[in-house]
Amino acid sequence: MLVVMKREATAEQIAHVIAAVAAQGLTPHPLPGATRTAIGMTGNTQAVEQSLFELLPGVAEAIRVTKPYKLTGREMQPHDTVVTMKQGIVGPKTFTLIAGPCSVESEATMHETAEHLLSRGIRFLRAGAFKPRTSPYAFQGMGLKGLKILANVKKATGIGIVTELMDVEHAEALEEMTDIIQIGARNMQNFSLLKRVGKCRKPVLLKRGLSATLEEWLMAAEYIMAGGNYDVILCERGVRTFSDHSRNTLDLSVIPPAKALCHLPIFVDPSHGTGKRAYVPAMSLAALGAGADGLMIEAHPDPDHAASDGAQTMDFTALDKLLETLRIMAPLLGRTL
Amino acid sequence: MLVVMKREATAEQIAHVIAAVAAQGLTPHPLPGATRTAIGMTGNTQAVEQSLFELLPGVAEAIRVTKPYKLTGREMQPHDTVVTMKQGIVGPKTFTLIAGPCSVESEATMHETAEHLLSRGIRFLRAGAFKPRTSPYAFQGMGLKGLKILANVKKATGIGIVTELMDVEHAEALEEMTDIIQIGARNMQNFSLLKRVGKCRKPVLLKRGLSATLEEWLMAAEYIMAGGNYDVILCERGVRTFSDHSRNTLDLSVIPPAKALCHLPIFVDPSHGTGKRAYVPAMSLAALGAGADGLMIEAHPDPDHAASDGAQTMDFTALDKLLETLRIMAPLLGRTL
Amino acid sequence: MLVVMKREATAEQIAHVIAAVAAQGLTPHPLPGATRTAIGMTGNTQAVEQSLFELLPGVAEAIRVTKPYKLTGREMQPHDTVVTMKQGIVGPKTFTLIAGPCSVESEATMHETAEHLLSRGIRFLRAGAFKPRTSPYAFQGMGLKGLKILANVKKATGIGIVTELMDVEHAEALEEMTDIIQIGARNMQNFSLLKRVGKCRKPVLLKRGLSATLEEWLMAAEYIMAGGNYDVILCERGVRTFSDHSRNTLDLSVIPPAKALCHLPIFVDPSHGTGKRAYVPAMSLAALGAGADGLMIEAHPDPDHAASDGAQTMDFTALDKLLETLRIMAPLLGRTL
Amino acid sequence: MLVVMKREATAEQIAHVIAAVAAQGLTPHPLPGATRTAIGMTGNTQAVEQSLFELLPGVAEAIRVTKPYKLTGREMQPHDTVVTMKQGIVGPKTFTLIAGPCSVESEATMHETAEHLLSRGIRFLRAGAFKPRTSPYAFQGMGLKGLKILANVKKATGIGIVTELMDVEHAEALEEMTDIIQIGARNMQNFSLLKRVGKCRKPVLLKRGLSATLEEWLMAAEYIMAGGNYDVILCERGVRTFSDHSRNTLDLSVIPPAKALCHLPIFVDPSHGTGKRAYVPAMSLAALGAGADGLMIEAHPDPDHAASDGAQTMDFTALDKLLETLRIMAPLLGRTL
Repeated sequence: MLVVMKREATAEQIAHVIAAVAAQGLTPHPLPGATRTAIGMTGNTQAVEQSLFELLPGVAEAIRVTKPYKLTGREMQPHDTVVTMKQGIVGPKTFTLIAGPCSVESEATMHETAEHLLSRGIRFLRAGAFKPRTSPYAFQGMGLKGLKILANVKKATGIGIVTELMDVEHAEALEEMTDIIQIGARNMQNFSLLKRVGKCRKPVLLKRGLSATLEEWLMAAEYIMAGGNYDVILCERGVRTFSDHSRNTLDLSVIPPAKALCHLPIFVDPSHGTGKRAYVPAMSLAALGAGADGLMIEAHPDPDHAASDGAQTMDFTALDKLLETLRIMAPLLGRTL
Repeated sequence: MLVVMKREATAEQIAHVIAAVAAQGLTPHPLPGATRTAIGMTGNTQAVEQSLFELLPGVAEAIRVTKPYKLTGREMQPHDTVVTMKQGIVGPKTFTLIAGPCSVESEATMHETAEHLLSRGIRFLRAGAFKPRTSPYAFQGMGLKGLKILANVKKATGIGIVTELMDVEHAEALEEMTDIIQIGARNMQNFSLLKRVGKCRKPVLLKRGLSATLEEWLMAAEYIMAGGNYDVILCERGVRTFSDHSRNTLDLSVIPPAKALCHLPIFVDPSHGTGKRAYVPAMSLAALGAGADGLMIEAHPDPDHAASDGAQTMDFTALDKLLETLRIMAPLLGRTL
Repeated sequence: MLVVMKREATAEQIAHVIAAVAAQGLTPHPLPGATRTAIGMTGNTQAVEQSLFELLPGVAEAIRVTKPYKLTGREMQPHDTVVTMKQGIVGPKTFTLIAGPCSVESEATMHETAEHLLSRGIRFLRAGAFKPRTSPYAFQGMGLKGLKILANVKKATGIGIVTELMDVEHAEALEEMTDIIQIGARNMQNFSLLKRVGKCRKPVLLKRGLSATLEEWLMAAEYIMAGGNYDVILCERGVRTFSDHSRNTLDLSVIPPAKALCHLPIFVDPSHGTGKRAYVPAMSLAALGAGADGLMIEAHPDPDHAASDGAQTMDFTALDKLLETLRIMAPLLGRTL
Repeated sequence: MLVVMKREATAEQIAHVIAAVAAQGLTPHPLPGATRTAIGMTGNTQAVEQSLFELLPGVAEAIRVTKPYKLTGREMQPHDTVVTMKQGIVGPKTFTLIAGPCSVESEATMHETAEHLLSRGIRFLRAGAFKPRTSPYAFQGMGLKGLKILANVKKATGIGIVTELMDVEHAEALEEMTDIIQIGARNMQNFSLLKRVGKCRKPVLLKRGLSATLEEWLMAAEYIMAGGNYDVILCERGVRTFSDHSRNTLDLSVIPPAKALCHLPIFVDPSHGTGKRAYVPAMSLAALGAGADGLMIEAHPDPDHAASDGAQTMDFTALDKLLETLRIMAPLLGRTL
């Protein structure tokens, strides 16, 4: 159920509706819009009586929402979500880049990378301190020591930090120091973890699972939003198909329907999507064309000696060249880079 | 085996090598390049002695080619293929549009469509006379009567005709009247049909099969080229995955590796790829970004009353709007629309 | 629409209904059952008036059929189809084996194989004269010479011949000499070929396409049946998924729903399904357990020297061992081997 | 590296090798076999010198292991793993059933179910206290209250309990009261969780991820074994493909290659695999034929009123009927039910 307030509804009337929702044992989600506020509600396992809310003062209408996703859907919030951070906003009319190495490496490398990115106007640095690796014998990331390096780099340069959370145990530490918490593809349906980041006060970048349908992806975002964290950024990173021409099949075709159904920003990770640095520029331009709100790209000063994922990591020269083209193209599609 | 001639090799020396290839029971394929000629050979079921050719006058070197595709591969022909037709060329530095209804309809509708397309600078009309339909009870196309309509429209307007060939029986009729013969996704591995169009003197647009790997797709093109028809245009039209957000999953990620391995032009069909007209513009821009050489789009003066595939067919207003954006973007990527 | 006759309906009344269907411009399909006859009709592009038929003498009821498949569906024919051939029947309560090499080889090898199979009670020999190969440079089969060998073997031994038809051109030759015409996976939606075998008077074994849904498979069978050939045997041979542990993913899970929706016999080809001879026995037993009506297995006196597909071909000792287990298991599941 | 001891090696010599492995900073894994002991080692990020171990007393040979999985592979342990529990063993020559409702329900229902199962010789009860649900608004299981019910049922009846662990937080509670800890498909690559159950002293049933390759599945088992818990049971439960005829595509074809590469027992869950109770018996028989070591089946006294997954849950009459057939078939395949 979605209760849409009249344009002229007062703050008091809105608070009254919120209390009425809670009185039904449901969780109210106030969704302020450009011209009016709507109040979503979740937690209803059975039908809620519409008339309970339509008669309250200031209410324009109460609408039944039938899709399994509620908070992520356009029905409940027609306008695009804008995620606001100290480093700037993510959302419509923008095109945001997140770049950096696969894993956190030495403090010197991370500083060098952050400074290069900032010099090019890129405001977010990605690097994993905890790495989900297929093999228990592969490098598992620097862990807390890696987090400490990221914190130092952030303090020194002001760059926004995007790093992956793999378990509930480290949620507090990551929430403290990152600007965007990343949930990896393999954890897209780790529901305990989703519930936990729903309680965090930092935006969450939610990668699409390797074989997740659009609905499952939106439902994973719904878990986070249902917990009270509305700043979710979706990120397509390639799905699993029969194809063997690349590491994964980057599914840009999901962007238009996702945009039609859901108001959250969508990023694309062409590095994991292709697995090969030579293919990253073409797929980056394609992502912009398809309607993505940003990119997450693996870049490193010396990719051939990166600690992990070197084959799909660009060097700074290649990144600069891509940036140049994106800066020309993005404005033509109504986006500021 | 690929025999690369010296820059200064004479026509006589080239002819001599060709004869030497034939003398081994193999089929020679002369491939003239910008600066020198190479001679590919196919038909070898066992290893061919390199030295047989390296000692001939005018030969620079003889190179073993190990990939299963030979004629389609960059090793045999490093430069991009340019397909030349009366209506213009298809290939690098261009971006070609093919548009029109799913099926041939009345002569009036086809004329109206052709004239609209030509007025917008679109030189190729697509429309199926023979329609591969999942159900034997669905409209199977107008058949020969449809071909006749296309021939009339071509005669009257000069527009290039692209239409699908479903069986060997109609190959001669299609070769006579079309400008590009289309092989549908479901026939990508109909090897008898591929062999037949290998004998045609018209370019072939080869759609990727619903679950074809890149190598299988290139091998299907190889069937056509091995028959002597080197004018093949690949066309991605969506593959089959677990995803249910669209009719098929348009796989733009295949374009960069296809371009890396193969010298043939690649088109994208965003209409079949998405199944929904609203998603066609975004995926068209994405295709351009990904490096496609052209698009094949379903368009109709009145899509809601089209004989088939109306849901994914654009009207002319939407097509005009898309064209406008493509005309701005294409030149920035070094392509002339 | 399906017209169900009363139990006591006369042959004359049945003929009358058939004529009435034809008078509507539709194709009547008389379907004699154990206790009563039903008359299906196809070709209706618009709704047919039920009352037109319900008032005719001998008619019990006229039923609307809404599934896209009609002739293949249980609604139109609830009982299992039994395909009757000179070599015996295929269908419920039986478990039929078809075995033999991938390709036709020398007459001596084919004789040896046929005699071994017959000595073990296997009544059908498989071998391809025309081979659909991914590469134009791979062995394409012995062609007409191979058909001649099969004809000789059949004449000498009486064994039933199962061989693949790849194009309309050879339909007549195959219909003449084979007992079961095979349509390969890559041609499952070669609609021109399906229409052609719909006119043949021999049973058709229809392999499932590499990425065909159950509905598409049944619709392909529907093409054949709509042409008047009701003796169709479905054959699962592995589908294309992300899995890389075998050549294809043999999809036994399709058998129970196929049996629920469709009355045609279903075979399984564990050789193509697994691509590895060591896995064939386990998957053969699994197919029997899943409800298959038979198997199509690649077997050869000397698989390591077979002309094609040796890796997935069993030798006679392994085949004998599998047979022994199948002969014990089949009767426990109500089937005669 | 795998160090194989001589048959006559003493306990002291074995201990000496174990100490030598640890001295290299590696983790030794002693693997006692029928006739001799082998010592695996993990943790080596670089090549280990073979000669270091080959010269030690009692050592037969030191073998390089190159597959990414070590502890799960047949190279390190050629014989089948037998998992021993109070309720009996799981492994070769057995066929073990685990049955019960999707979710824990009332204590009365659980008692009724446990008693029915035990009366039929089924020694393990499955039921989820924590449920991974796609929607945050769907029933999430009874949680700790559900665990308490399971503990009571176990105490009263002695039945073995199989229940799912969703997060590290509840690992201790589950380890305490269950007999087999289940890791769900969506958590197959939740590496933090895998590491945690590697420390548990209870067997782990590891479901295959929705799009996991065989190698990824074995690597997930490797995470558990690398932690020191060698009692892992694999469970196939259906993978994600383009097919829409069932909830998932139950991939029985993975069993023969898994058995060839890996020594762990493999179960099949035909309830999730098909999503439809009517298809469960056929796929259960197929699983037995394919070489599975057991089944995990959803059963409930009144499936139409089960708290979740009713459509794929069998009632006791259907379960009895299936059991009857399995009891006849299993011994013919050398297995005791």
